[in-house]
Parts: sequence; structure tokens; C-alpha cells
Amino acid sequence: MIHVIGLGPGASDLLAPRAASALEAATDLVGYGPYLERVPPRTGQTRHASDNRAELARARHALALAQEERRVAVVSGGDAGVFGMASALFEAIDHGPPEWRALEVEVVPGISALLAAAARVGAPLGHDFCVLSLSDNLKSWETIAARLTAAATAGFAIALYNPLSRARPWQLGAAFDVLRVHLPGATRVVFATAVSRPDERVTVTTLAAADPALADMRTLVLVGTQATRTIERAGAVPWIYAPRGESA
Amino acid sequence: MIHVIGLGPGASDLLAPRAASALEAATDLVGYGPYLERVPPRTGQTRHASDNRAELARARHALALAQEERRVAVVSGGDAGVFGMASALFEAIDHGPPEWRALEVEVVPGISALLAAAARVGAPLGHDFCVLSLSDNLKSWETIAARLTAAATAGFAIALYNPLSRARPWQLGAAFDVLRVHLPGATRVVFATAVSRPDERVTVTTLAAADPALADMRTLVLVGTQATRTIERAGAVPWIYAPRGESA
Repeated sequence: MIHVIGLGPGASDLLAPRAASALEAATDLVGYGPYLERVPPRTGQTRHASDNRAELARARHALALAQEERRVAVVSGGDAGVFGMASALFEAIDHGPPEWRALEVEVVPGISALLAAAARVGAPLGHDFCVLSLSDNLKSWETIAARLTAAATAGFAIALYNPLSRARPWQLGAAFDVLRVHLPGATRVVFATAVSRPDERVTVTTLAAADPALADMRTLVLVGTQATRTIERAGAVPWIYAPRGESA
Repeated sequence: MIHVIGLGPGASDLLAPRAASALEAATDLVGYGPYLERVPPRTGQTRHASDNRAELARARHALALAQEERRVAVVSGGDAGVFGMASALFEAIDHGPPEWRALEVEVVPGISALLAAAARVGAPLGHDFCVLSLSDNLKSWETIAARLTAAATAGFAIALYNPLSRARPWQLGAAFDVLRVHLPGATRVVFATAVSRPDERVTVTTLAAADPALADMRTLVLVGTQATRTIERAGAVPWIYAPRGESA
């Protein structure tokens, strides 16, 4: 039995009971080190921490453990189905031994970073939106640029995952350059890092002024549309929202 | 003080503690009737149920209550920021009296229907995806068709909200017709209704065979890409997933 669990954005009160129960019942926790550290320790439970890039190897390890009758919880940040471990796990099953198809797998949904980031600033994803990863480890930059163009010209709000990392320092700046061709400089951009965690940092700016240096690998970047509205408030952070009656 | 709360897909163990606490602390619950019915009754709490279409009026009512020093919880299904009440609330503030801007508003994120539906069948949103409402109450059908075309041709997986209703019976069929121009008939389509609730109904089919009659107003429709894979299993429902290493 394998549970693939999204831990939510970070705060313990944003983790649903179903995920908490599955974490408690597991004999083995498998995941990227910093995510495992968010799970309260439990006697008798074995932790298998691995590096960020090793998703497929981690999935295979989890499947092998489950075959030994262990109760395995594979953890991701946010929701496991959104650039998390769920795809890697099914990919490993698809290309693995036939016995793995007989395992019971339950994906337990979680509050994804995009939902937490949006809620933090208002409702910037309140109309049609796209969700894109800027990592070109697994797809070409040409594909990413074409999708950014398609999303911006069709009037979707955009949520960008994996905006940059030490190994990929230029992608976010290049993405802003692509978007600036199609969207006005006044388009709202939100940098949301570690939402709901003690080191949370949220910045609201414009596409013209957006500085990639505001992002790190934990940042979710939201880009509005021409319809996105800002509500200014005396002495408080403005709210950003996408009106339901948007124009194209 | 207003909390705008996503109730998640329906099962009580998919509601995060932060949302449960805000619901408990509220003096007044405001929302669409069937969503309010999901919240356990509580002595001393007033419920203000309204019709599905009356979002802006409902938002104004909630703001007026909050101005009378009531602790108001506005509820949505799934996540309030994804075609839920959050946008309507900020829209009401934006066009309302200046006093409303001084209210404290917290949007509490929830597990959206798209995440719950995807988790139920595997990981069909494991690469870039778009989220679209098919309701043309607030935007033109031409805009919707253009977005479907942009999403399909750019290689996004697609999650469709509000696929149809009694007042809008033809949109989902028309959307499938648009998608069939750009995607092969074998493209995977998932109809997910009432996920995690007792009347849950999930059907996996293809774009060629997709029958709009499988959807009602509570259905979330997922459309894969050419990269989407199916894992067949003896005697069990197949898993659907989007490989991380997708092609365009």
C-alpha cells in the first residue's frame, strides 16, 4: 500500500486530516529531505530522505518498499499531483515490473502552492488560468516559451512553478521577457515564497518592474491578465483579484 | 472580519483544520445552499443560504454583516479562489463603499475539485495544465473557444469547470468539438462528479467517445494531452498520468 501525499503549503493547519492519518499510519516515509522534515517524528517509522532531483529513483524505492509489505507514504510539498511525486510514481510503475501494478496506490490531494499563494493576496486566479513549470530539465525552452505565449495571448492568468534554481538561473528572466511582448508592463506579478511558513515572503509588483532576484526555488510566481484588478487600502497591502467577468 | 473558505471536494477529512476552525468561530455562514448543508450545524450560528447565481449579492450581504461586527464565513466548494466566492467578494469590495476596504478579509485555501479529481484517477495534471470555466454567463463563447484552442495546441492538459447546466446544455459538447479539431480521438478524458462524496461517479474515456451526458453541473472534466499515459491493470480501474518528461 502506498499513499502519495501532498503536505500542503507548510502550515500544519493547512494539512487535511486524511493526509495526517496516512502519515501517521505509515511505516516508511519517502521524500525530498526538507519535506520529510515537516512531518512530526513518530517512533517506529523509518524515513528515507533523498535529493530533489532523484524523483524517479525515489519512486522506485517507495514501490520496492511497498512490495515488502511496508505501509509507504511518499510526500510532496503542496499537492502531489502538481509538479509533485504522483507523476513520478506512476511513471515508475508504467516502466517497472508487472507486480507493481497490483499495488494499492492512493493519491491524497493537498492544498497546492498556487492556491495558497493566490489566497494570500486575494483572488488572482479567479478566472481562467494556466499552471506551468519553468524547469527545462524535462522539456525544451522552446516548448516553455510557446506555452507562455499561448497563455498570455489567450488571456489566462498564469502560475509559474520552479521559476529558477542555482542550476537554472536565467529561466524566470527569460519568461518575463516573453510575457512582456504580449502583456502590458502594468500587468500584476506576485512573488510568493514559503506561503504559510515562518519565512513567508510575498511581493506584489508589475511585469515591467518584476525582478527575478525576488524568486528562489521555493517561490511561486503569479502573473495576472489585463483584467486583473488591484484594490488599494490605506495602511495595508493591496488586494489583487481577477474579476469573474473578464475580457479576453 | 470575513473568512472566505473553500470547503474542499466534500469529504470531511479533506477539510483542513484552518477552515474547520474558521467555520466554528463564525457567527454567520453565507453561501450557496448545498455548500452550507455540508457544514455541521452549530448552536447560535446563523445561516444565510442563497441561490447559485447570486454571487455578487451574496458577497455584498456578507460584507454588510461583517460591518455589523459579525464574524462571517463565506463558503465555496473546493477552493474559494478557483471559480468560487473569493473573486465575487473582492469585486463587491472594489465597487462598494470605502468602509468595506477596512474590513479584515482572510481567504482560507481549500483542496480544489481539480486536485481531488486528478488524485482520484492518478496524476493527469502532472505537467503543465490550464483551468477553464465553460460558463458563458460572464465571457463570450468566442473567448472560451479561443482559450480551448490555445490550451490544446500548446500542449496543456485541461481542467474544465462548469461544463454545463440546465440553462447551458450545449457548451460541453461544443468544447469537445473544438478540442477534437486539435487533439487525437484517443486523448484521455475524465468525467469526475462529486469526488470524495457518497454519490461520487468517475468515468475515464476518450475524446472521440466523450459523451456530454456524463456531466452535470457538479462535474469536473479533465482532458489529457498526446503525452498522457494510461496504465492498465487486471481487474481494476486504469491509472491515468501525465509523464513529467512531456513532449509539446
